[in-house]
Amino acid sequence: MSAKLWAGRFSKPTDASVEQYNASITFDNTMVYEDILGSHAHAAMLAKCGIITAAENEQLQQGLQQISKKVTEGKITFQIADEDIHMNIERMLHESIGDVAGKLHTARSRNDQVALDIHLYLRKQIVEIVELLTQLQNTLLTMAKEHRHVILPGYTHLQRAQPIYLAQHWLAYVAMLQRDSTRLQEIWLRVNQSPLGACALTGTTFTTDRHYVAEQLGFDGIYLNTLDAVSDRDFIIEFLASSAITMMHLSRLSEELILWSSQEFNFITLDDAFCTGSSIMPQKKNPDVPELARGKTGRVYGALFTLLTLLKGLPLAYNKDLQEDKEPLFDTIKTLRDTLAIYIPLLATLKVNSANMRAAVNDGYLNATVLAEYLVRCGATFRVAHEVVGKMVAHCVAKKCRLEDLSLTEMQKFYPAISEEVRQVLSIENTVAACDVKNHLSVVDTDLAQREQQVQKDEAWLAAKQGLLVAVYTKFGLAK
Amino acid sequence: MSAKLWAGRFSKPTDASVEQYNASITFDNTMVYEDILGSHAHAAMLAKCGIITAAENEQLQQGLQQISKKVTEGKITFQIADEDIHMNIERMLHESIGDVAGKLHTARSRNDQVALDIHLYLRKQIVEIVELLTQLQNTLLTMAKEHRHVILPGYTHLQRAQPIYLAQHWLAYVAMLQRDSTRLQEIWLRVNQSPLGACALTGTTFTTDRHYVAEQLGFDGIYLNTLDAVSDRDFIIEFLASSAITMMHLSRLSEELILWSSQEFNFITLDDAFCTGSSIMPQKKNPDVPELARGKTGRVYGALFTLLTLLKGLPLAYNKDLQEDKEPLFDTIKTLRDTLAIYIPLLATLKVNSANMRAAVNDGYLNATVLAEYLVRCGATFRVAHEVVGKMVAHCVAKKCRLEDLSLTEMQKFYPAISEEVRQVLSIENTVAACDVKNHLSVVDTDLAQREQQVQKDEAWLAAKQGLLVAVYTKFGLAK
Amino acid sequence: MSAKLWAGRFSKPTDASVEQYNASITFDNTMVYEDILGSHAHAAMLAKCGIITAAENEQLQQGLQQISKKVTEGKITFQIADEDIHMNIERMLHESIGDVAGKLHTARSRNDQVALDIHLYLRKQIVEIVELLTQLQNTLLTMAKEHRHVILPGYTHLQRAQPIYLAQHWLAYVAMLQRDSTRLQEIWLRVNQSPLGACALTGTTFTTDRHYVAEQLGFDGIYLNTLDAVSDRDFIIEFLASSAITMMHLSRLSEELILWSSQEFNFITLDDAFCTGSSIMPQKKNPDVPELARGKTGRVYGALFTLLTLLKGLPLAYNKDLQEDKEPLFDTIKTLRDTLAIYIPLLATLKVNSANMRAAVNDGYLNATVLAEYLVRCGATFRVAHEVVGKMVAHCVAKKCRLEDLSLTEMQKFYPAISEEVRQVLSIENTVAACDVKNHLSVVDTDLAQREQQVQKDEAWLAAKQGLLVAVYTKFGLAK
Amino acid sequence: MSAKLWAGRFSKPTDASVEQYNASITFDNTMVYEDILGSHAHAAMLAKCGIITAAENEQLQQGLQQISKKVTEGKITFQIADEDIHMNIERMLHESIGDVAGKLHTARSRNDQVALDIHLYLRKQIVEIVELLTQLQNTLLTMAKEHRHVILPGYTHLQRAQPIYLAQHWLAYVAMLQRDSTRLQEIWLRVNQSPLGACALTGTTFTTDRHYVAEQLGFDGIYLNTLDAVSDRDFIIEFLASSAITMMHLSRLSEELILWSSQEFNFITLDDAFCTGSSIMPQKKNPDVPELARGKTGRVYGALFTLLTLLKGLPLAYNKDLQEDKEPLFDTIKTLRDTLAIYIPLLATLKVNSANMRAAVNDGYLNATVLAEYLVRCGATFRVAHEVVGKMVAHCVAKKCRLEDLSLTEMQKFYPAISEEVRQVLSIENTVAACDVKNHLSVVDTDLAQREQQVQKDEAWLAAKQGLLVAVYTKFGLAK
Repeated sequence: MSAKLWAGRFSKPTDASVEQYNASITFDNTMVYEDILGSHAHAAMLAKCGIITAAENEQLQQGLQQISKKVTEGKITFQIADEDIHMNIERMLHESIGDVAGKLHTARSRNDQVALDIHLYLRKQIVEIVELLTQLQNTLLTMAKEHRHVILPGYTHLQRAQPIYLAQHWLAYVAMLQRDSTRLQEIWLRVNQSPLGACALTGTTFTTDRHYVAEQLGFDGIYLNTLDAVSDRDFIIEFLASSAITMMHLSRLSEELILWSSQEFNFITLDDAFCTGSSIMPQKKNPDVPELARGKTGRVYGALFTLLTLLKGLPLAYNKDLQEDKEPLFDTIKTLRDTLAIYIPLLATLKVNSANMRAAVNDGYLNATVLAEYLVRCGATFRVAHEVVGKMVAHCVAKKCRLEDLSLTEMQKFYPAISEEVRQVLSIENTVAACDVKNHLSVVDTDLAQREQQVQKDEAWLAAKQGLLVAVYTKFGLAK
Repeated sequence: MSAKLWAGRFSKPTDASVEQYNASITFDNTMVYEDILGSHAHAAMLAKCGIITAAENEQLQQGLQQISKKVTEGKITFQIADEDIHMNIERMLHESIGDVAGKLHTARSRNDQVALDIHLYLRKQIVEIVELLTQLQNTLLTMAKEHRHVILPGYTHLQRAQPIYLAQHWLAYVAMLQRDSTRLQEIWLRVNQSPLGACALTGTTFTTDRHYVAEQLGFDGIYLNTLDAVSDRDFIIEFLASSAITMMHLSRLSEELILWSSQEFNFITLDDAFCTGSSIMPQKKNPDVPELARGKTGRVYGALFTLLTLLKGLPLAYNKDLQEDKEPLFDTIKTLRDTLAIYIPLLATLKVNSANMRAAVNDGYLNATVLAEYLVRCGATFRVAHEVVGKMVAHCVAKKCRLEDLSLTEMQKFYPAISEEVRQVLSIENTVAACDVKNHLSVVDTDLAQREQQVQKDEAWLAAKQGLLVAVYTKFGLAK
Repeated sequence: MSAKLWAGRFSKPTDASVEQYNASITFDNTMVYEDILGSHAHAAMLAKCGIITAAENEQLQQGLQQISKKVTEGKITFQIADEDIHMNIERMLHESIGDVAGKLHTARSRNDQVALDIHLYLRKQIVEIVELLTQLQNTLLTMAKEHRHVILPGYTHLQRAQPIYLAQHWLAYVAMLQRDSTRLQEIWLRVNQSPLGACALTGTTFTTDRHYVAEQLGFDGIYLNTLDAVSDRDFIIEFLASSAITMMHLSRLSEELILWSSQEFNFITLDDAFCTGSSIMPQKKNPDVPELARGKTGRVYGALFTLLTLLKGLPLAYNKDLQEDKEPLFDTIKTLRDTLAIYIPLLATLKVNSANMRAAVNDGYLNATVLAEYLVRCGATFRVAHEVVGKMVAHCVAKKCRLEDLSLTEMQKFYPAISEEVRQVLSIENTVAACDVKNHLSVVDTDLAQREQQVQKDEAWLAAKQGLLVAVYTKFGLAK
Repeated sequence: MSAKLWAGRFSKPTDASVEQYNASITFDNTMVYEDILGSHAHAAMLAKCGIITAAENEQLQQGLQQISKKVTEGKITFQIADEDIHMNIERMLHESIGDVAGKLHTARSRNDQVALDIHLYLRKQIVEIVELLTQLQNTLLTMAKEHRHVILPGYTHLQRAQPIYLAQHWLAYVAMLQRDSTRLQEIWLRVNQSPLGACALTGTTFTTDRHYVAEQLGFDGIYLNTLDAVSDRDFIIEFLASSAITMMHLSRLSEELILWSSQEFNFITLDDAFCTGSSIMPQKKNPDVPELARGKTGRVYGALFTLLTLLKGLPLAYNKDLQEDKEPLFDTIKTLRDTLAIYIPLLATLKVNSANMRAAVNDGYLNATVLAEYLVRCGATFRVAHEVVGKMVAHCVAKKCRLEDLSLTEMQKFYPAISEEVRQVLSIENTVAACDVKNHLSVVDTDLAQREQQVQKDEAWLAAKQGLLVAVYTKFGLAK
């Protein structure tokens, strides 16, 4: 065996700088178990199709199991000279079981093998991310129930707009996370397709069974088109785009937690265990976690654009540029998982300063809209009502008072049909309740109930996929 | 009525520069029909719920129809001072039917109205884009059938790799476009949700019927959470991300058409009607369309990044920043539609220079892999076979000959077990056919058949959605 | 003359859809004066080099002047069929002066002509943007002087950190804008290079004088390398990157204005003329301009990414993809100019609520750091001092009091060496002044003075460049 | 000393997950020498200003030297619990020299310290990148001289356009790299400014000497505005934008090397030492390095957008989000350095197949433009000449011959004034030479000479900056 497994045609060894520049083993070792898993299934298929013997298959299976055992025990060292995870594993296999190792790469190329590894790896990660999304939703649902009747100002343009229940706020984030979860489940179907058997780009002259391998590995289907199988990275981009949206959601939540933690809002208090201090200012307690989460949004956006740039204008089929797909993917997975995971206890431990929230509702004329709606019920068109109340607000701003501080007579100067009933209208509690209860049914409770149902559906999907993965990995002696 | 419909509270008119900076009418007039459509349904709901009278509703319906008629006839002028499409339409309505126009905005805000318009507009555009994707797929399928047996080099790293059928190449693009189409159909479900009734951010004290409006407009559901309804732009980002992937696919196809049109490849000839010339070089015939398509990929990527940046760190609920969502969306829709549309005749008229393709297969040792696979059948492990053939290639490169030019004796010096059978192995036609036919079934034909089935499913989806849209628009006297 | 000026070699007319897709006249007409200006200088050079006669030159010069006059009077119509601004102008010239118009394009290609136009256009725009940057700096400098002694909390992590002068805050933005201005002046040198004479990609066999044209047009030099001259778009990307940074600065300022306008902060009041209201909530006064400015950051980022994507992997020299460079550039120029321009009066009219700023300083233990520094002067290491004050703050948080509310005895329990002098230390006014005055020189005043000097330098640069441009444009009868 | 150096005010330890999420030590240890360097200078300043004693300074200086020695010897371990490089070094210092270590952080915050470290680190890296840019330019200049007279087709739209010298091609890339180098030198001035002394955000009550520290560290100036000092990341974004442009240039060069290495072009042969093979196709020799370089463009673009996103909308002054600035910066530095470094030997060893280049010039009517220019000299306007030659080309395409294959009589049918002189005009060598020699001066030689002069200027800059850095680092016993 020559130095490089592909070196037969070459008259010179690879330059050392090229080896460094070219090697992917420093990062693609992340997929070591998936690479081994794929080889288990590939060898089994070669045997089933009579391309290798049952005995050879047995040797390969055992050799691969020994390697995965060593990996788990931390007993292996990867080598730059072997370029990537595939060649590293093949070298180890050769050291372990001798020349029969050379049969494993029959009817396979690194082009389809690396695609296989990413498909296997990403589908597992998506399941784990959906699990975190579900847990975070459950955390928010618990908070929504707990704060069902806490009233705070709803904001538009960061100006106090109308009073809302805190539950509505948490449920808005549940709504976003549910779209994220649904989207990932849709993407999962496109991820869970087997490229193996496409070989370099057009299959092989061996009579292989691509469906058998796919079945062994729990795939939902195969890439029929072999050029597409080795050159497609849509499934990664879709995942990154979805992750960018999730991080964007978390950046919005982060922004609000940072605002609400400020001395000016003082709506919430983050637990000491989730904050850090300053090296110079002894009094500081900073909301570092939401700030970092907001900042990390940038790196996920960056990863998405890295991949989009990468693929722009690439001719078919495989090009080496594609090797650059993995680091942004792995970094995004880590960022997303870490951020979702830390948000669960951070939210669960935050203290809501509901008195401050309630107090904030009193300033800012948050009952102006219901007053206008009341005027409509008194006979005004909405346009007229809007204008009248606008003038009443301007009057109050000048007088530095609230709408409810005006006497009935004063109000009637603006619109004569206003009656004593207006007092009830202007009560903040009534305002919120009036917006909430429509058609004798609470909108917030309905929202809450439907979100919970959706989480249960997600949990069912999750259980199914987790079961599938455990079955596939354990079949070949690998821990999921 | 004061100058601005919201000006009651203000002591000064808006600065002229602010009016210019703030106004969205220069671009949101794109959604004029959707704005009118939404108002038809909203007025109908107000009447059904007893918030306005049947007579008032009738006036509003007729007034709106007059406006849409004028729009179609090109008889209206939008005004910057009215800020946006919503206020422009309301002003026209007031001019047309008087003060009752002021009742239309009851239980509605521009926050939910603009969201409604975008949902209505985008769902229609997605249907039209799926239609174009379907037509482009059909074009490629026709080409695949026509070029079923044309052989050309398959490339990896832009180096000739193994011979393939041209059909495989076109089908790879069909595979990409089918993922694009599927993804859009998934997104459609999230686009086709009604935000109307969320009002500014938390609904209204009027007893409205959000489901009735949604039904009138053919929506699949409503945004239960009102904060989410007015602040969600996920559905736009998802569409832009999907469009970015489609443009990336087209950039890859473009790159190949440009390469193949070069004097060096000379694999295809684009029709004169789809090329342009040079102002200085009289001989030039340039593949401008694929070049522009490749270039336009950038603007769609840019639009995606614009939206992601926009939403990063925005607190709930509506913020004015969101107004910036529309221009990138509209530009992307136009770019995507124009590019898909022009690719259909461009592909249909291109001439395949199959003789040049076939000739290119002869150089570059494209049968090296099948020779290695033959050696495996002779008893070598694949690793040994690979190395032996590598050395044979190096030998031929030095001798400037092909593998098939070596005598049997020469070959046997590299690997003694090679027999006369090798002649058949090295035939290019046999190579391609051997890769194609697996288990007595042609892979290419299977691929072709399954793609056609998928297109038929897409066409069924399309017909259903087109039917729905026609029904909704015509119900209110609007052309789709 | 055939339909297309380059159509000699073609057997078919261009498809109508291709004409639409290909045409740039809908946006490159923005550079109409620059296109004409370049033609004036080119014709003059052709005459000087004896390639055309003096009489022909005279005809061309007059013909071009007639066209620019018509443009100013709004009397011309551009045609899609003429593709771009260059061919439109040439057609008009032919209509006006007959066949001699056909001599203008001698020794020139659209490849170098369009590059020339962009160089001419962008250098002019940069001058106008530097002018706006200078005005905005002057506005902020005026505010800094006016608010020289207004004290407010400085924030880190959006938590109150230490008291600062408002002047420091405004000067921080001046510092950013000065970097922006300096950078644009550096870029200007690379923009102000003439590509004309590179022709399609490699010059011409006519003996032209590239330096003469460059001199006529006020360029600082020429692109010596002709391949580079027609394919370089670095100068656009540099401008877009610089604009992205400027918009980022304005997004930070916008964020602060939005925060400070909230009811929670209430540090400033934006003028009514620079805010707008809500269509449903009569009390609302929204900071739309800063919100839009913050949102528009996204579109400038997007434009930068569009151009970077465009150029990735393009082989030399000119490719049609490059036509896509203009719309993002024009949109960025408009966005940047509009945003800078509107910020000048918006800032000049905002009202500072200095009492609220001052009040905010009292809460949040903003004197904790100076207390720690005092303990260092009492003999503690900074680490010990930090820990001691940290515990004092924790004690005060529990007691709900301020540091200055503790008695000397209480303080001495934490650190015995504390003496009565601590009272002065804890005074907020003293704190700020102590940070400001270093070495008998006020840091804020020094900062202010140096920024003013820098603005004066920028103004000198501006005057020089404006003078140059006026001279060049008027020489050929064009208004700058 | 409590567990965290800032923990005095906290009632609970930091959650372990927060420690992980928050810690930057896993990547900011890259700047370990710069952190130590900054502390050396800071301690010296504290002593000079009488804030610590000379003896204490001596202890700190020696303690820091011991740590840097241990770092070089690989004898230190960083701890996650210490969060970042600053706290890790301070802890080590405390272990080494005891409580006096607690004096080092006087009049300093991590906010200004981390900014200092990045400024120090980046200025050093820029110098090293300018050095690589210079070397790469020298490589290309050598190639340009070597291939001074090799003729190949110049391309526009990837169609053969006009013949050019290979030297022109290499010089086009030198032109790009020179802009890159100039830009970095401009940025260096903005990087080489000291933020130290800004402390958390507004300086300190100690009378420090910011200019003295800056001088010790070889800075060109200080950030006068302290809020700006701790929150500015423009200098990183400018560097990333510049790097993105450089990578874009390399992606264009890469694209051309890939094209030229294809069997279709066959213009160059990359050295075996700079290519790799395929795991399945024994004949393959792939241009992996240019492909990877092209692909890595994406990650640098991604890094730029990460930072731009990060900073969008951040209020002043320091926010934790800023911690996310380092990984994209470090990754970009590595990518850029590795790619420039590997391109130097890759280019130096590539073989030019000049015969193939020359042969390619013969097909494609590359002399059509000079023929048109000849017709102008015969009296035609350029427009007429263009059309006539266009028709001649169309005639030749149909006849499958070259322009020079037409007889004089045939030519005269297209344009009667054509004379025997046309033979010389149509010679390719004459064409190139005619474009080259203008005004009795060879354009290519002038270009070459001016590029060499520019490289010499860059080398002078480089020597000056390298000298400065060596002086600064060795003063404090650190290797540069």
